[in-house]
Parts: sequence; structure tokens; C-alpha cells
Amino acid sequence: MEKINKNILNQVITLRNPVSYKGNYGKILIIAGSTHFGGAAILCSSAAVASGAGLVTVATVPEKFTAINTRIPEAMTIDYQNKNDLLEAIQNNTVIAIGPGLGISSVAKGLVKVVLKEATKNQTVIIDASALTLIAEEKIPLTTNAKIIMTPHQGEWERLSTLKIHEQNELNNIDELHKLNPKAALVLKKHHSEIYYQGKVLQITAGNAGMATGGMGDTLTGIMAGFIGQFGFSIETISAALLIHSYIADKLNKKHYVILPSLLIEKLPKYMASFSYENGHYLS
Amino acid sequence: MEKINKNILNQVITLRNPVSYKGNYGKILIIAGSTHFGGAAILCSSAAVASGAGLVTVATVPEKFTAINTRIPEAMTIDYQNKNDLLEAIQNNTVIAIGPGLGISSVAKGLVKVVLKEATKNQTVIIDASALTLIAEEKIPLTTNAKIIMTPHQGEWERLSTLKIHEQNELNNIDELHKLNPKAALVLKKHHSEIYYQGKVLQITAGNAGMATGGMGDTLTGIMAGFIGQFGFSIETISAALLIHSYIADKLNKKHYVILPSLLIEKLPKYMASFSYENGHYLS
Amino acid sequence: MEKINKNILNQVITLRNPVSYKGNYGKILIIAGSTHFGGAAILCSSAAVASGAGLVTVATVPEKFTAINTRIPEAMTIDYQNKNDLLEAIQNNTVIAIGPGLGISSVAKGLVKVVLKEATKNQTVIIDASALTLIAEEKIPLTTNAKIIMTPHQGEWERLSTLKIHEQNELNNIDELHKLNPKAALVLKKHHSEIYYQGKVLQITAGNAGMATGGMGDTLTGIMAGFIGQFGFSIETISAALLIHSYIADKLNKKHYVILPSLLIEKLPKYMASFSYENGHYLS
Amino acid sequence: MEKINKNILNQVITLRNPVSYKGNYGKILIIAGSTHFGGAAILCSSAAVASGAGLVTVATVPEKFTAINTRIPEAMTIDYQNKNDLLEAIQNNTVIAIGPGLGISSVAKGLVKVVLKEATKNQTVIIDASALTLIAEEKIPLTTNAKIIMTPHQGEWERLSTLKIHEQNELNNIDELHKLNPKAALVLKKHHSEIYYQGKVLQITAGNAGMATGGMGDTLTGIMAGFIGQFGFSIETISAALLIHSYIADKLNKKHYVILPSLLIEKLPKYMASFSYENGHYLS
Repeated sequence: MEKINKNILNQVITLRNPVSYKGNYGKILIIAGSTHFGGAAILCSSAAVASGAGLVTVATVPEKFTAINTRIPEAMTIDYQNKNDLLEAIQNNTVIAIGPGLGISSVAKGLVKVVLKEATKNQTVIIDASALTLIAEEKIPLTTNAKIIMTPHQGEWERLSTLKIHEQNELNNIDELHKLNPKAALVLKKHHSEIYYQGKVLQITAGNAGMATGGMGDTLTGIMAGFIGQFGFSIETISAALLIHSYIADKLNKKHYVILPSLLIEKLPKYMASFSYENGHYLS
Repeated sequence: MEKINKNILNQVITLRNPVSYKGNYGKILIIAGSTHFGGAAILCSSAAVASGAGLVTVATVPEKFTAINTRIPEAMTIDYQNKNDLLEAIQNNTVIAIGPGLGISSVAKGLVKVVLKEATKNQTVIIDASALTLIAEEKIPLTTNAKIIMTPHQGEWERLSTLKIHEQNELNNIDELHKLNPKAALVLKKHHSEIYYQGKVLQITAGNAGMATGGMGDTLTGIMAGFIGQFGFSIETISAALLIHSYIADKLNKKHYVILPSLLIEKLPKYMASFSYENGHYLS
Repeated sequence: MEKINKNILNQVITLRNPVSYKGNYGKILIIAGSTHFGGAAILCSSAAVASGAGLVTVATVPEKFTAINTRIPEAMTIDYQNKNDLLEAIQNNTVIAIGPGLGISSVAKGLVKVVLKEATKNQTVIIDASALTLIAEEKIPLTTNAKIIMTPHQGEWERLSTLKIHEQNELNNIDELHKLNPKAALVLKKHHSEIYYQGKVLQITAGNAGMATGGMGDTLTGIMAGFIGQFGFSIETISAALLIHSYIADKLNKKHYVILPSLLIEKLPKYMASFSYENGHYLS
Repeated sequence: MEKINKNILNQVITLRNPVSYKGNYGKILIIAGSTHFGGAAILCSSAAVASGAGLVTVATVPEKFTAINTRIPEAMTIDYQNKNDLLEAIQNNTVIAIGPGLGISSVAKGLVKVVLKEATKNQTVIIDASALTLIAEEKIPLTTNAKIIMTPHQGEWERLSTLKIHEQNELNNIDELHKLNPKAALVLKKHHSEIYYQGKVLQITAGNAGMATGGMGDTLTGIMAGFIGQFGFSIETISAALLIHSYIADKLNKKHYVILPSLLIEKLPKYMASFSYENGHYLS
């Protein structure tokens, strides 16, 4: 299993073209949150904004709009129960992340289905958390025209793949991913998380147990969405998103027993700058 | 095209008279925000407050009052759907900014019309975002007794002027602005933004691609409102507001890959102090 | 007119007795805020909390509870429209501040009247902002058993005293205060604010024009309430509260063009410590 | 009475196993908050999150969800008035803290009873604030299968034990605790707080009068819950939670006249790290 080198961050996080606009950095739709899980939508969309996404729209229940406006004034909101608004948003965005805090209601199930159905081949759909649980438990076929990235932790991957955790080795994971959708990318979150894509397997060596806290996965999903929106879908972009999440956490862990996701998010713009500048400056 | 020199900041951001009161620093009305775009109202009015405006009132939908109170306790709120409250606010404020996150509903259209109709010659109206779109699409005549500043980005200017982006050169812009309203000032947001006013054209050389993120325009509108409220309507004030926005962003960009508008806003009081103090101290 | 010396801060801000409890530091009731003026309640009660008040209860409209909980989880809330809750709160608190953002509705008028009527001689009532306007305009007699502190700015004092601003000199102010209520203390907010109490007149020389911004008066009221709650009613306590507000603002003004009230509030615990420690340490 | 040595912090706050997951660090249910006391739920659950709890769910009234989402996106929320949701949450969590800001309504009374009845021997129930008052005043028998920690201040202990404050000495406290529930642990909050458990009595010498402010007790309860969730129920864990709360407050008190609970909470991850690292580093 190939280890991901830190150089991937310098390679992916390129300096921005001075003549560019927010439209160049991705339009991200985050379908997340429900009455009991409002924080997941906040963390996921904050991470997308802080990672440099051009425009971020959060599709959630209206009762969460106030918290989202307060925490992330940079983001827009829509009600995912309004079908017209949702369909329009699916069409207008380049990256769609679905799942954090969504819950497993019939509304949530409908959202997963409509995203898989409506997303087109130029779009990327990131499937996380409740969306993965719904696909596993409701046997929703993982067929879509869009590019797919799944980001399960080991328990979610067990439900999706039917592989027990002790059976989740490289070969089995490749096989089961192939059965689910041979074109999908899999980010398997664990101690030293792994990426599976088209038979290739990569692994990070960063990460620490201070990350073992609620909301850390939602944060990764937001970074992943922001990175795909800016740097395009590729195994390199997926690797960089996965790595920077753990890389910042490792830096913070030197002085923090637990890494609060909101702190990690706050640090994103600075760490991203540090990697982009190793490629040279564009500031005159 | 004349470049705007950084000295304009020292010139415009004058030391305050020790014997002065909040009434001396402008009464600002921000007409902004709607169900799906609450954050724009927050960023715009935060920027007005942080830039030193004496009093800031946000006219928005009541469902956004909680987020505004939480983020900007320094601001007051009214419901823009309450006609009496709105008319009173239009009368009582010296600067009115309209558009950020307003949307293009019939309510929003009515707001643009009433502001243009009711504002008087001693007031300044700053027209941004959705308000510009409405003027273009609904063919609302740009006639008003107030002084006008429009702050479109290139796409919004295309809709207003019917000039394609590649046609947006100095002469064409002058011509089209003259047709829309010969007394209006135009702030054209782009790489190295430009100001058009009474045949004069100025340009900043500050700004960077880390500013290409949602909410950055709303922030400029708030600064513009705060500056006009404190320093009066003039091409110099407009230049200083435009420049300080990009100047702070350039400083932040040295260590931030993307500039979050809320961070830029937080830095306003310090950067403004640094320019005012070059003119001498009034602290004993 | 006697100038207030900075030593008053060392004298008033005493080290706390190690064996003491929150009940020793005052129970503060802040009656503030209304639909359009939610921020005033937040700033006033934040300032009371940060200045060291033992317990702070905010009486306001329920629609503001969320913003208050979010910004000041240390405070409790009640609905001032619930007469039983209000009367109980008036009885149970040692210091009552009324007015910031209250507005001039008939509800607000009723609140002012009930506080004046119900407060007892061991309590202090601080009257500010809308409460002062109501007393002036509705000719509410300023009679109460409680100790009173009024904190008008010059315009509010004009309405209360009928003295035009240019007539507001030492002798006239003493006379008019005597007519309103000979036992009341008056804090007249202006360039170099003044205190009038029982014929004595004091003045601070601190303060700066960067304080000329919305919410700065609400902040002073909160500090005043917190100080009276902890250090008892006296002209020394009033002086110290008035001075520390401007003292911190002067420190901040060295690096901030405008002083945001929320920043000043955040700095209170540190500046208070610096003065208390000049009297010695009690930490082993 | 044995003094608790600072070494207990190094002993309890162990380095985390690199191969571990949020499920290893406790599932915490905080039953707290009501219309008038929303902040207590925020402070208690923030403290649990910041102290490293794996997963935190706040059971409260739905009107507080927005403030909780905004302040602590890392936490989940349920409505404690929904009996099914509540029973499920009681079953699924390992540590249950009940009381901060709960009030003494009949709903609150029902919550205390159901927790005592439903909690099982592998769970820990922390009883604080309003829950203690209810047990005292409503004579709710303190019988349960769960492990119990009570965290009264002296006034609450008076109501529970019927011991006047001057009668609250070591022997009397042991006796009365034994009568209430011989297996319960008692954390008696006072100047130099004490722990009583199975006849053993321990005392901290940390703590200061700057902690005498609203919300400080709610914060301790959250830390206690987070510590039990991560480090297991033991007198050592209880001691460490009690001590770190006062230890951080003592550090902050050197520069803060009053210790705001929210500031103390923010510092938890750093102070916990400093103690864990004295045992060695696991970061490569």
C-alpha cells in the first residue's frame, strides 16, 4: 500500500491565478443537518468555506438557517424539503456533499436518491455519514452519472461492504468497492486512513487519537468538497484533502489533548497558504 | 487610467475630533438579506460597524434578527416588509446600502423602487448585488434625488450596461454609465477594480485571488457605507473604501490562502488606525 | 469640578475574599432589549458579566433569548412581559438596570413605572437610554425608594432637564438634578463625562472619539451594574465604573480607529485584574 | 482530610491509544436547560466536548437547539420532552449528567425520576443544580442502579442533607451521604472543594474567588462527565476533574479578575495536553 507523501499538498494546493473569480473555485452544495444534528451541517460547510470553496450553499431544514447564518455568513442556505429549490441547486453546483447529520428519515432517503439520480458526469458527489448508512440499510443502488467519493469510517464501511472490521483488508476492500461501484473512490477513515480508487490504494501516515471526537468526519467532508471544487476531481486532490485534515490535526495535537473540529477549520487558510507558497509567490 | 495611491487612505481616514458623537459618523441603513441569503446582511452590516459608522440599522426579514443580534450587537434591526418602519428609516439615515442577499423577489423589487423614490439629495444610496440585478432585469429606471454609488462585479455590470465582459473598457464603461445615470459613481469590481465618476476613471492595483470567495462583495459594500457616513461622499472616500478592502486582503493573503470576509472585517479598526495615526495623535 | 484620579480604580476594585461565593458579588437584573434593539440587551448584560457580577438575569422579549444564550451563556433570561416573573426578579436582585434597547412602547413605559414603584431602598436602579426618554416624554415622576443612577448622554439629559446642551453647565445641572430627584446620582456622558451626586461634581479626563459608536452607552450601563453589585453603591464605585470604561477604550484606541463595544467588554477581566493586583496578591 | 495532589492529573489524563475511536471516549448525555436557563446547557455541554468526550448529546427544550448548534456544533441535540427519544438516549449513553439550568418544573421532576429509574449499573449519573434541588424538595429517593456523583454547592447540600452550612463538617457529611445513598460520590463545591466517596474524604487546595460567577458549576459538571466518559468512574477520575477545573481557573485568575466559564472551557484541551505529555509523547 503506497504511502501518501506530504509533497502532494504542494502539488495540489496551487497558487491562484490573479485574474480569477469565485466562480473558478467551485460551487459547493452541502446537503446536511436535521433537527437533532444541526452541528454537522455547520462543521461541514464551515470547512468547505475555510478551505477556499468559491461559493457554498447549505441545503438543510430551515430551523437551522439561523445557526448557519451566525457561524458561516459566507454560506447561503436552502430548504432541502423544497423540491424545486433542491433540484435547481443540484443542477447549479459542481460538487455535492451529502450526509453529515442528515439522519435516516424517509426525507433523508429521498434526498440521497434524488442526488444520485440527478447528478451528472461533470459533477462530484461526496457521500458521507447518514447517506452511507441509508445506502447500506435501504439497499439504495450506488448508480449515478456523477463521480463519487465515499467517506465511511470502518463501521459505516462494514455496513456498506458487509466486511467485518477484521476483514477490511486491501484486497477485500478493492473487491467490495468494485461491486458497489467500480468508478467510485473510497476514503476509508481509520487509524492511517486509506484511499481506494480504480484499483489503486493509498494511505496517509498522519492522524492522531485527539481527532476521535464528534464532528471530525463532517469536517473532512467539507474539506474534500472544497478541494474538489477548487482543484478538480483526481486521486491527488482526494489525497491532499485527506492529508491536510490529519496534518493540521497533528500540529494541533502537540498542544491540544482533543482537537476541536472548529479549531481545525479555523486553521485551514493558514496551513493551505504555507503549502501554496512553497511553489512561489504571486503577490507583487 | 489613473492609479489610486495608498496615500488616499491617510488623506481620507482622518483623526476624529475629540469632541464628537456617534451622530457625527453617519447613520447607515443596510437593506439586505432574505430567507436564503442571511449571511450577506451580516457581513455587510458588520463591515459598516467595524469601519466606524456611528449607527447602523439593518432592514431585513425578521427571521434574521437573531443571527444579526448575535453577530453584531452594535446594530439595530427593522423589518423591511413593514412599510412605515422602512420609510421612517429611509428618512432618518444618511447612507442607504441596498442589495446584498436581497434576492430578486417582488418584495426586493419594491424595496429598490422605494429607496430610489424616497431618498433625497443629501443622502447616498449604494446599490449592490441583487439590487443591481433587479434594476437590470426589471428595467427599473435609475432615477433618484440621492447620490448613487453602484458596486457591480463584471457579470452584474454586463447585465446593467449590456456590455459583454470583453467590451468593458474605459470608454464603453463611461458611455454606458452616463446613459444609466450621469451623476452616479460606478465601482466596477474585478482584478484591479475601477471607479468611474463624472468622466474620471481611477483604478486600484491592490487585491488578490484569495478574495475570490462568497461574501467579499457584501463586505466592500459595508465598508463603503461606513466610509461615506464618516467621511462624506466624494471620489476620494470611494477610492479609500475600495482600496482599504483590498489592502487588508493583500496583507492577510500573505498568510491565508483564502481571505474569509469575517476575518477581513475584524481587522478593519486596526488598519484604519494605522492610517489615521500617520497624520498625528490626538490621544494625550 | 474635581477630576477623578486613576487611583480610584485600585481603591474600588479590591481583591476578592478567597472564602466568598457568587451571591457576594451582586444579583443583577438587566431590563433591556426589544424586537428592533436586541443588541443593546446583549452588550449591557455581557458587560455586567465580564465586570464580575455574581449573577446576571436579562429581562427581555423571548425572541431575544437565543441570541443572549449564544453570546452570554453565563446569564439567565426572563420575559419582561410576564408580570409574575418580572416582579419576582425585581425583588430578588440587588441591582436593576433598565433602558438599553427597551424602546418607548407602552410595555416599556409600564416597565419603568413598575421598577420605580417596586424597588426598595437597599436596591440600586440604573436608568439609561429609552428609560430616560420615557421618563422625560411621559413625565413619569422620578420617585422611588431605591438608590438611583441615571446615565444620559447630553441629548437625553436635555430631554430630562430641559436644559439645552449649551446650558448644561455645572450649576444648572446640579439644580435640575435636584428638582428631578435630590438623592439621585447623574452620570452625564459627554467628552470627559461628569458625575453629579448630592451636590458633588466629578469628571473623568479619559475617553476618546473612537467610542462614538452604537452600543457604547449600553456597555457602560452593564459595567455600572456589575460594579455596584460587587462594590456597593457609592460615588467611588460610580466613578470607577465610569473611568474603567473610558480607560480601556483609551488603551484600545491606540490601535483601533473605532472601539467596538464587544472588544472593550472582552478586555474587562484583564484590566480589572491589573488594578486589583496593585493592592497585593491573594494567590498562594 | 487528604489533600489531592496535582500528580493526579498526570495519572488520570493518559495519552490516548493511537488506534482508538470516538466510541472509546464516552457517550455523554447532558440533560439540561429550560426556557429561562439556556446558558447552563451550553456551558455544561461545551465543557464536556472540550474535555475530550467522544460524543455529546444535549437533551433540552427545542427552543435552545439553535444556540447549542451555534456554540457547540460538535454536539447533538434531542428534545427531553419526547419520551421515546429520551429513553433511547438514556440507554445509549455511558454517562448522564442531569440538572444544569433544568429548573424545578414538573417536567424537570419527571426527568430526574426517569433517569434514576432507567440508568443501569454500567452507567454513571452526575446530579447537579436543579436536579439536586428537586431531589431535596420533592423528596425523590436517591435510588438507582447507576453509579452516582452529586455536585452540590453548600446551599444545595444543606437542602439535600438538612445540614446547615456550619454543620457541614467531615463526619456529618459522611453520615448524611451514607443515609442518602451509601454508594454515591459527593463533590461538595466550596472554598477548597471536597470529595466524599465510600468513607474516603479528599480535598483540593486549588480554586479562587474569581470563580464566583454564574455558570462555573455547570462547567464543572461538563468536565466531570467528559472525564468519566474517557477515564472511567473512580475517585481518581472525580478528583482529576474537580482539580483541573480549579487549576485552570487559578492560572487564569493571575490575569483575570473574574474567570468567565467560557474562557476556562476554551483552555481545557491545552491544559489537558500539558498533563498528558508529562507521561511521554506518542506523536512520532
